[in-house]
Amino acid sequence: MNTDKWVYAFDEIEAAEKYVGGDWEAVRGLLGGKGANLGEMTRIGIPVPPGFTVTTEACNAYLDAGEIFPAGMWDQVLAALKGIEQRTGKTFGAVDNPLLVSCRSGAKFSMPGMMDTVLDIGLNAEVVEAMITRTDDPHFVYDSFRRLIQMFGSVVLGIRDEPFEEVLAQHREAGGVTSDTDLTVEDLQEIVVEFKEIVQRFANIDFPSDPYEQLRMATEAVFKSWNGKRARDYRKAAHIPNDLGTGVNVQTMVFGNIGEDSATGVAMSRNATTGENVLEGDFLANAQGEDVVAGTRPTQPIEALEADMPTLYAEFQQIARLLEHHYRDMQDMEFTIEDGKLWLLQTRDGKRTAQAAVRIAVDMVEEKLISREEALRRVSPDQVDFFLHPQFSSAAKKTATLLATGLNVSPGAAVGVLAFTPGLAERWATDDQRPVVMARPETKPDDVHGMLAAKGILTSSGGRTSHAALVARQFGKPAVVGAAALDIDVNGRVMTIGDLEMHEGDWISIDGTTGEVFAGQLDTIVPDIQDPYLVRLLEWADETRTLEVWANADYAADAERARLNGAQGIGLCRTEHMFFEPKRLPIVQRMITSPSAGEKRDAVDALLPFQREDFTELFRVMDGLPVIIRLIDPPLHEFLPSYEELTHDLTDLKIRITSARDLAEVDTLLEQVTEKTAMLERVLALHEANPMLGTRGVRLGILMPALTRMQVRAIFEAACKVTTEGVSVHPEVMIPLTSHVNELARQREVLEAEAKLVMEEQGIDIEYKFGTMIEIPRAALTAEAIAEHAEFLSFGTNDLTQTTYGISRDDAESGFLIDYLSEDILPANPFATLDIDGVGKLMEMAITASRERRPDMPIGICGEHGGDPASIEFCNALGLSYVSCSPFRVPVARLAAAQAAIAAR
Amino acid sequence: MNTDKWVYAFDEIEAAEKYVGGDWEAVRGLLGGKGANLGEMTRIGIPVPPGFTVTTEACNAYLDAGEIFPAGMWDQVLAALKGIEQRTGKTFGAVDNPLLVSCRSGAKFSMPGMMDTVLDIGLNAEVVEAMITRTDDPHFVYDSFRRLIQMFGSVVLGIRDEPFEEVLAQHREAGGVTSDTDLTVEDLQEIVVEFKEIVQRFANIDFPSDPYEQLRMATEAVFKSWNGKRARDYRKAAHIPNDLGTGVNVQTMVFGNIGEDSATGVAMSRNATTGENVLEGDFLANAQGEDVVAGTRPTQPIEALEADMPTLYAEFQQIARLLEHHYRDMQDMEFTIEDGKLWLLQTRDGKRTAQAAVRIAVDMVEEKLISREEALRRVSPDQVDFFLHPQFSSAAKKTATLLATGLNVSPGAAVGVLAFTPGLAERWATDDQRPVVMARPETKPDDVHGMLAAKGILTSSGGRTSHAALVARQFGKPAVVGAAALDIDVNGRVMTIGDLEMHEGDWISIDGTTGEVFAGQLDTIVPDIQDPYLVRLLEWADETRTLEVWANADYAADAERARLNGAQGIGLCRTEHMFFEPKRLPIVQRMITSPSAGEKRDAVDALLPFQREDFTELFRVMDGLPVIIRLIDPPLHEFLPSYEELTHDLTDLKIRITSARDLAEVDTLLEQVTEKTAMLERVLALHEANPMLGTRGVRLGILMPALTRMQVRAIFEAACKVTTEGVSVHPEVMIPLTSHVNELARQREVLEAEAKLVMEEQGIDIEYKFGTMIEIPRAALTAEAIAEHAEFLSFGTNDLTQTTYGISRDDAESGFLIDYLSEDILPANPFATLDIDGVGKLMEMAITASRERRPDMPIGICGEHGGDPASIEFCNALGLSYVSCSPFRVPVARLAAAQAAIAAR
Repeated sequence: MNTDKWVYAFDEIEAAEKYVGGDWEAVRGLLGGKGANLGEMTRIGIPVPPGFTVTTEACNAYLDAGEIFPAGMWDQVLAALKGIEQRTGKTFGAVDNPLLVSCRSGAKFSMPGMMDTVLDIGLNAEVVEAMITRTDDPHFVYDSFRRLIQMFGSVVLGIRDEPFEEVLAQHREAGGVTSDTDLTVEDLQEIVVEFKEIVQRFANIDFPSDPYEQLRMATEAVFKSWNGKRARDYRKAAHIPNDLGTGVNVQTMVFGNIGEDSATGVAMSRNATTGENVLEGDFLANAQGEDVVAGTRPTQPIEALEADMPTLYAEFQQIARLLEHHYRDMQDMEFTIEDGKLWLLQTRDGKRTAQAAVRIAVDMVEEKLISREEALRRVSPDQVDFFLHPQFSSAAKKTATLLATGLNVSPGAAVGVLAFTPGLAERWATDDQRPVVMARPETKPDDVHGMLAAKGILTSSGGRTSHAALVARQFGKPAVVGAAALDIDVNGRVMTIGDLEMHEGDWISIDGTTGEVFAGQLDTIVPDIQDPYLVRLLEWADETRTLEVWANADYAADAERARLNGAQGIGLCRTEHMFFEPKRLPIVQRMITSPSAGEKRDAVDALLPFQREDFTELFRVMDGLPVIIRLIDPPLHEFLPSYEELTHDLTDLKIRITSARDLAEVDTLLEQVTEKTAMLERVLALHEANPMLGTRGVRLGILMPALTRMQVRAIFEAACKVTTEGVSVHPEVMIPLTSHVNELARQREVLEAEAKLVMEEQGIDIEYKFGTMIEIPRAALTAEAIAEHAEFLSFGTNDLTQTTYGISRDDAESGFLIDYLSEDILPANPFATLDIDGVGKLMEMAITASRERRPDMPIGICGEHGGDPASIEFCNALGLSYVSCSPFRVPVARLAAAQAAIAAR
Repeated sequence: MNTDKWVYAFDEIEAAEKYVGGDWEAVRGLLGGKGANLGEMTRIGIPVPPGFTVTTEACNAYLDAGEIFPAGMWDQVLAALKGIEQRTGKTFGAVDNPLLVSCRSGAKFSMPGMMDTVLDIGLNAEVVEAMITRTDDPHFVYDSFRRLIQMFGSVVLGIRDEPFEEVLAQHREAGGVTSDTDLTVEDLQEIVVEFKEIVQRFANIDFPSDPYEQLRMATEAVFKSWNGKRARDYRKAAHIPNDLGTGVNVQTMVFGNIGEDSATGVAMSRNATTGENVLEGDFLANAQGEDVVAGTRPTQPIEALEADMPTLYAEFQQIARLLEHHYRDMQDMEFTIEDGKLWLLQTRDGKRTAQAAVRIAVDMVEEKLISREEALRRVSPDQVDFFLHPQFSSAAKKTATLLATGLNVSPGAAVGVLAFTPGLAERWATDDQRPVVMARPETKPDDVHGMLAAKGILTSSGGRTSHAALVARQFGKPAVVGAAALDIDVNGRVMTIGDLEMHEGDWISIDGTTGEVFAGQLDTIVPDIQDPYLVRLLEWADETRTLEVWANADYAADAERARLNGAQGIGLCRTEHMFFEPKRLPIVQRMITSPSAGEKRDAVDALLPFQREDFTELFRVMDGLPVIIRLIDPPLHEFLPSYEELTHDLTDLKIRITSARDLAEVDTLLEQVTEKTAMLERVLALHEANPMLGTRGVRLGILMPALTRMQVRAIFEAACKVTTEGVSVHPEVMIPLTSHVNELARQREVLEAEAKLVMEEQGIDIEYKFGTMIEIPRAALTAEAIAEHAEFLSFGTNDLTQTTYGISRDDAESGFLIDYLSEDILPANPFATLDIDGVGKLMEMAITASRERRPDMPIGICGEHGGDPASIEFCNALGLSYVSCSPFRVPVARLAAAQAAIAAR
């Protein structure tokens, strides 16, 4: 520190800039955020009540010296006060036209726990009398005085609020009124006396009647509050250095409550809900700011000002414009009109809805206020996500009964009647056209038809990447999972929450954006994905980004949505989902369970037309764009009933046999027992200790080449068919779970031969590729060898994270991972945001090594991370060709990719 | 090719060397292995029947030219033949003292499928007569003639053996004899005629009576056989180039069957069983080589020669010595004595038992025949392993009934009575002192007490790293696992193999070295680990190696064995095995299942004295050496009964209730139902989809710090105690399954505080370390950060292989991995031999990164690979500090480490 200037008037901001070297951050450091802002507004000609700032350096000097003002500081304060007096024509402590000031702390960063505000400094018995004479409003003046004493007592002298509040309560009771504003002048006079007694009693001093003493004490209180316990705790938690210090802002009081030409209010420079470029706000004539906040009198919309005070309204509009131009963003302003004169008390960037954020960003580009790049940076990917899902209105939420809160795994609001089984969910939804929310303890693949039929999905267990969460995100169904407070008894057809019971058919509302679960039927609002501002913003995003955005889509309907949302290809079509459909599952089960090779082959053959049809539709939709089809991946037991289910059924059948009416019934039941027992044996034979690391992916293809060969035949027959229709088709066959290059090489050899055979049969040449997923550490580690046999690579980061971290995601996300996150052992859930140090390092190695072999290797990512903005930034930095995510995340990813490109510049 | 010399007499080996440039490999390339060897023996003065070699170049030239001898070749053959005639005084095709020769193929590499041998070339009707006159032994001469015709017919003309054998059979039948040697001269004369007719009939030519024609045709047949289908197939499989060609060796026939001064036999230059430095072999006087092989007459031991022909025996001894000195290894020789003259027909390095291999290597160093380094290279680690386990005698195996073959997971022979449950195994073994072989479909942790009691372990499923295999290797119990032919019905107490049934109490013998399972009680022999030759060899190994060898040992008894076998520390003491002991398991279960925090704490406290005692004993045994103790690792459900077991018990109890005699019994049963149901609920709560990737290792320690803190307390209390006894103790606490450095940092903080507390309480300072296992890819990838908090690292390559490869070992080794290995998709089982490309790359990264942070970081390996010679070589190359393996593998690892050090020079 090398100065003897401790005080800057608001209009001395340039001197402050000069002192610190012109850097805005440094100015904020010197004057604090609030002081710097008031100076800035003053500089650009905004009518700000005159005032000055005591610097943070003064605060530090004061504290360092053992709570003694640095030499010259107080004189500078007095001089600055004189300056205010000159500008306002008022005099501090004078009975004739007295000057009242406020005193506020203001550090570089907004910081709860520090002394806040003392208003109306400068009042004492004499000044009060003088002001009453001047304003002819004793109620206002006494009220101001009792407020000063209370605030001073509380924030400067550290007296608790209770004794003050008690006095007010007694007077309200005695007067038979409910609000302080209804107290009489006599009441207020008595209160002032009693408040002074409180100060005397609790702080053991007389309330200082000298205005300068008031100001001095308030200034010291601000300085000292920098080292208060709460402020220190906050700084520690927020990692704010201890040596910044706080500034003190002393500012002329203005009053919105001294007549009908006075008013006070708040306004946004644009509509914070829609983003429309009009002033929006509320005000109260003849009122103080507190009255607006208290809501005791109805406020008027800002437009009413136009009628009442047209010139002033015009001035306000101009000021709002000026502030927007200066701060280059929509402003949230506090203002007071005193005797027909408009004063701005504060301005800051305004909070806004997602919709408004998009429109404002786009409009400001049109208005040449900001660049396209800036517009892209201003909208968060989550705000784009908002457009993709219905939402509960905040009004509806306020009055609803919150049942539980779970994990917000798939955003959006869903309202429907409760159904506990997929069968019932489907029947009600399809036959009865009732909206359904399906609730289950957790879901598994054969629940999918119910999940598809439902509006929303609710589970009491499972984590962010549980089956329910994955499917929900995939299909854009709002979902709340792991709501542990819900006890769902599927057999008893009842869901218990504490004492409350909900039955099937009861209305329920779930908010997948927040994880909330409500009883009853809440109102929803649906944003518009075709919102022209969003469309415009995403166009700019597309022009900016280099990373392509593809989608994970298993069905033609998904693919349509993906295209609509801007996907540039299908990065992952999971073929096994096609196997779970009711017509197909029995064939799949026959294929798995039949002991006869012939029957197995027949079953595989029977699946061919289904698969071909699936692909045909998909290719038509994706005309002109690449489609990556992943061959069968999950362990076969997933297609069979569970062990628990089968043993339960068997016990059931055996009991029914004992009570059968005749032998014919016994025979029928015995037949079923035989069938179930055979299935049970097969299930046991397929049982694996760790199915995640078991017989799946390419391992299945090697053990059952007929199955994957059928899939490839279906792909190429479909491709040939749509080619004859004029569709431009680009199938890419993806072999999953390679860990050794030989697995890939063997499968590819068999499958490419089949592909060529089909093309020869059909006499049509298809442009195709064979590639593999990198989802096992070993594949990443040996990527150069794998690149020899793969024409494209796709990181399956869900599984890669599981194996790299040694974490089974379903087990962990409902288990120890929760503790890990809550105890900060892990910085983030690695299944939500890519683990850069571990998984990321493997990805980097794989990219470098594979492009060593094949420099133009297309490499993408198709795990959940493909839709996560933080992960997208990393993918962009890695030089990936594309990210592939749920169709519903495509717009989000487009923006995130653009932001990543900007960040990388 | 740049020569016109196609033929080298055996004594022209130096010319051949000169031609190829002196390189021995090239000489073998030119002359073939057999030709080069005969030349070599000739050069060093061994009496080899004179002969010559037609070069492989001649073979190639013949084949290239369309089966025409290259110009000059045949003349050179004739000239060489002349040379033989001069040296032997015999003449080819002459009636006076005729020369007979053999003709054999001989390629650079020994190669089945090529033409083998034609003997007695040079015989025809006239020569036969002359020879009869000369030898006065028409039986021998006609027998030789009929052999020539048969061999010529079969190998040169390609006639099947059957017609020849038929003729012989007819004559034996007619003559009423069983052996060809008992046929009369008349028979043989007739047979010669009939054989010639067979040649005429099947080859459509007259048997050539011209000896030169015989030799020419035999030579061509050898050349052509190089391109025979079987030879080509073999070369393809063995990766032998097709352009090597074969040589042809033409050699003077000598006869061991022309009188009592003649003999034939085989001999080893040292005893092949014990390694003792004495000639060992068998011979038959007046006999041919075939007679020795056929075993129709009893052979005499070689020592008998000493009595019969002392000079000749002395000559033989000298020859053996000469050959050993020349080849610097023990020799396996074929010899013939013709008319009192000793001829060597072949010599090669002799096969020997493990015991002999060790003794011969050590002796040869003493004899200054080879260096210590060479001795260390000559003995294979597997041969050392032999000394550690009892073996079946080969005689016993020959007559035994082989029931099945499984995986040879833990070497050694075990004989015992069958027991199907650990309880019975333990009772029979302990109470009745009966040797037991425990057979189970597969084993789990609570079977361990039975496994420990048993002599050997047999399972019908599971792979090389199944629980049974791991425990068996750990405790050095012979084991055969995954013997799928066995159907073990534990409840029915019967094991079915095809039609055969074996019951509990039946004798069974299993060979863990070969994987064989025999019915009955086979004889075993026990080698001696304290064999002085082995001790010597391992001392040299210790002097040679730089890699330390530690052992994995959970109990003091293991540690004792480990020290005895030369371990330099304990690299892995698994503390959870201590929890499975019958006295402790109920406490552990209480700790896991109790809903009360107090009861849980009490249970943990109750375990403390047990653990302290475990460690106290271990530390005493390992006085002066480091002991790495791994904190609890497996998922908690492993300590509880299985779901299947509990549901089975519950069903059982419910049935018993329905038939209870009185209410008191019902109450008792209901109580048990309640208890089991509670246990079942806990088991279900702990159920994980993929326990391998679930709540285990350090994750347990973080969730239940009281448990690991208790373990650390036990370690340090034990360490303090033994310190007062004068023991030098070096505990190293190993935290398992770290994937993120924070896990390690947190646990270490808690645990080190406990350690310091104990040391303070006891007033004793212990030298200790805290470290972690690297068994998750992420730990390897972030090793530099981990090194910040770890004072040592140990690769847990079992789990690291599972996660890096994405393979659940138990599932895979009884599943797809078998197909992968049999179809050559994987070059080796990565759980048996380290996967260098994948797991190895991670290890390398981790070593480099962690030593970046801590240059002297001690890094070891404690997975199964620590005892695998190929993996040890890699570990040595990586610069690991030590390998840690089963106590039974320590000697093996000592040798392997020495070999690795030699290989790295």
